[in-house]
Amino acid sequence: MFHRIYKNVQEKQPLVHCITNYVTVNDCANMLLACGGLPIMADDIREVEDITALCNGLCLNIGTLNDRAFQSMRSAGKKANQLARPVVLDPVGAGASAFRTSAAFELLSQIDFAVIRGNSSEIKTLAQGIGTTQGVDANESDAVTVENLEDTVAWVKALSAQTGAVIVMTGAMDIVAEPGKAFVIYNGHPMMSKITGSGCMLSAVIAAFTAANSDEILLAAVSAVCAMGLCGEIAYKKTMARNGGTSAYRGELIDGMSLMTADTLQGGAKFEHR
Amino acid sequence: MFHRIYKNVQEKQPLVHCITNYVTVNDCANMLLACGGLPIMADDIREVEDITALCNGLCLNIGTLNDRAFQSMRSAGKKANQLARPVVLDPVGAGASAFRTSAAFELLSQIDFAVIRGNSSEIKTLAQGIGTTQGVDANESDAVTVENLEDTVAWVKALSAQTGAVIVMTGAMDIVAEPGKAFVIYNGHPMMSKITGSGCMLSAVIAAFTAANSDEILLAAVSAVCAMGLCGEIAYKKTMARNGGTSAYRGELIDGMSLMTADTLQGGAKFEHR
Amino acid sequence: MFHRIYKNVQEKQPLVHCITNYVTVNDCANMLLACGGLPIMADDIREVEDITALCNGLCLNIGTLNDRAFQSMRSAGKKANQLARPVVLDPVGAGASAFRTSAAFELLSQIDFAVIRGNSSEIKTLAQGIGTTQGVDANESDAVTVENLEDTVAWVKALSAQTGAVIVMTGAMDIVAEPGKAFVIYNGHPMMSKITGSGCMLSAVIAAFTAANSDEILLAAVSAVCAMGLCGEIAYKKTMARNGGTSAYRGELIDGMSLMTADTLQGGAKFEHR
Repeated sequence: MFHRIYKNVQEKQPLVHCITNYVTVNDCANMLLACGGLPIMADDIREVEDITALCNGLCLNIGTLNDRAFQSMRSAGKKANQLARPVVLDPVGAGASAFRTSAAFELLSQIDFAVIRGNSSEIKTLAQGIGTTQGVDANESDAVTVENLEDTVAWVKALSAQTGAVIVMTGAMDIVAEPGKAFVIYNGHPMMSKITGSGCMLSAVIAAFTAANSDEILLAAVSAVCAMGLCGEIAYKKTMARNGGTSAYRGELIDGMSLMTADTLQGGAKFEHR
Repeated sequence: MFHRIYKNVQEKQPLVHCITNYVTVNDCANMLLACGGLPIMADDIREVEDITALCNGLCLNIGTLNDRAFQSMRSAGKKANQLARPVVLDPVGAGASAFRTSAAFELLSQIDFAVIRGNSSEIKTLAQGIGTTQGVDANESDAVTVENLEDTVAWVKALSAQTGAVIVMTGAMDIVAEPGKAFVIYNGHPMMSKITGSGCMLSAVIAAFTAANSDEILLAAVSAVCAMGLCGEIAYKKTMARNGGTSAYRGELIDGMSLMTADTLQGGAKFEHR
Repeated sequence: MFHRIYKNVQEKQPLVHCITNYVTVNDCANMLLACGGLPIMADDIREVEDITALCNGLCLNIGTLNDRAFQSMRSAGKKANQLARPVVLDPVGAGASAFRTSAAFELLSQIDFAVIRGNSSEIKTLAQGIGTTQGVDANESDAVTVENLEDTVAWVKALSAQTGAVIVMTGAMDIVAEPGKAFVIYNGHPMMSKITGSGCMLSAVIAAFTAANSDEILLAAVSAVCAMGLCGEIAYKKTMARNGGTSAYRGELIDGMSLMTADTLQGGAKFEHR
């Protein structure tokens, strides 16, 4: 499956419209290019519909959200829905402030998302209506463990049924779920949390993968998560080999995506069905 | 010529005011420092005139444009014109949305630009009033080829005559033109399009080069384009030598500019008159 | 002292709320992670109080200031004061425009800062009410020298008494002062001024160090300044060893912080009391 999904991204070079935060926007653009997509960032209400209409997919990321961008997200999301282009939501920090939580819920109520990707605190906030999010990183009490995996998969599937979106919950173990089917993914490396933007970049990559594979959203999301996790593993080895730190790691992560091949992805993906 | 132009940049260390997009702003600031300039970014209407007055040049870039920044661009541009400081326009995505296209034309109508730099789709949009821009990258159908070079140089010269600005149209071949004279530049590498910001960074470098050489805008622009293209070539070799990917390439591109010398530039520039 | 201060940062992993400019925001986030903190960026008025309340410290940076962010800074700063969380001010470009200068003074009048960090032109602007700031880099005429060090330390101490904040004035020699005590720090390297964001990153690191050591603000600030300067020295050696340029240096600077140890810091810090 990885070969087909990945090849579609490379051949179609999906154009992805991102309305995203200004912290990691450059990383998202470079990671989109690295994975075979083409980025365009635009957030003014007067152009977001035009830009969405040009694009194959849309990624909405609520980090550093403000009212202006929020209105633009609603317009762009509705336009993408009309045109049947996949839309990805990254509810950065949902649960950390009332503003972000309510913004996430309002977007959920007005837009049909193909995929929602967040860490365990953010996804739990969406599932429970109230969160334990402490900032933009997941709270340890929300972590997925071997002990709670069964239960976690169950409520993530339920959230997928409720929202109509494939849910991607990332952490030490990643869960990608639709109502009747879930994947647990074991790729990745803890060093990914020592740089900013790992999650944002993954959401952008998911947007590219689903934009190029809009009839197989679940598998496209699984492929993107495996690819990103695998880059995290490869980047760790390369960084250690040159005694690098976190900035070296950030570079190796993007390099890893740009040097990825379908064979590397197929050979390195570590996942199971649940 | 390259020695004189380049030496002026190093000695004058031109301060360049950028009103630019938030995707590549960090790259623009670092590239400006790398080429010998000093960056200052400011976009609030209450300070842009003060900031422009401090600076030797101004760079207006309409990527991620919004109304607030647009008003500031008009004020800053008019101030720079009053003070006879060179102003560079980068019409990112002109043709991709009605908003950006009309913003570009409104800026053109109100501000005298020293240089306009864009890819072939963006420049064609300015020349024809309507574009085939697909996102922020050039549409292939707009590419300059050996076959259409003669015709292309002719209409780019005409656009220069019409706007009063030196036109820099970048792609596999770059064209730098004033009404009676054009240069075709063969420096550069395709990998420059695999990272975000190559074009934005070049526009910023052109602003620095013209700010330090305000009586030779055409040659300053040619030198900046050759320098950037040469960095693209050097970066490619260095990146391949270490099996790097696109992030490594981005770093090598900026490194290349910071390690540039007048001799390297003079020796490596590949151009012809048209 | 460095062991204790540094260990507190690593163990407490302080969450730092930054309202900062979009030029260097990604660098600040990555540097915060590298030094042991956790970043969260949020600037909308409807959420800044929530976010500040979650965090251990706050960093206000007026580069690319606008009215919206300014209002948010005031709200966040007051909230942090109520909760007794340390607040750091980075008055980027104070003196370069009337807007930034008055914004800096208005923040000073309404918020109690734990630390104010700027270059010599910015700090002089705050001390004298009027500045010689030329852009975002210090004016050479404002530089601290062996000749004016005695006088400079005196007026920096006076500014500390006047504002109630520890003052950190960075340059070739850094001065960290409270009313009755000052440190002169000799760590650092001139190449730090060849990349954007050295100052912004230091302010963010100071916010993390003070957030984790809120009962020893002066020593926390000294430790942060020594750590950053030491990273600048190490990065220079590593960059030269691989014939790198300014982008390599930027990476090595962040890597240096992520690879720092308490022993390296203790062994490398170069300072004297004044």
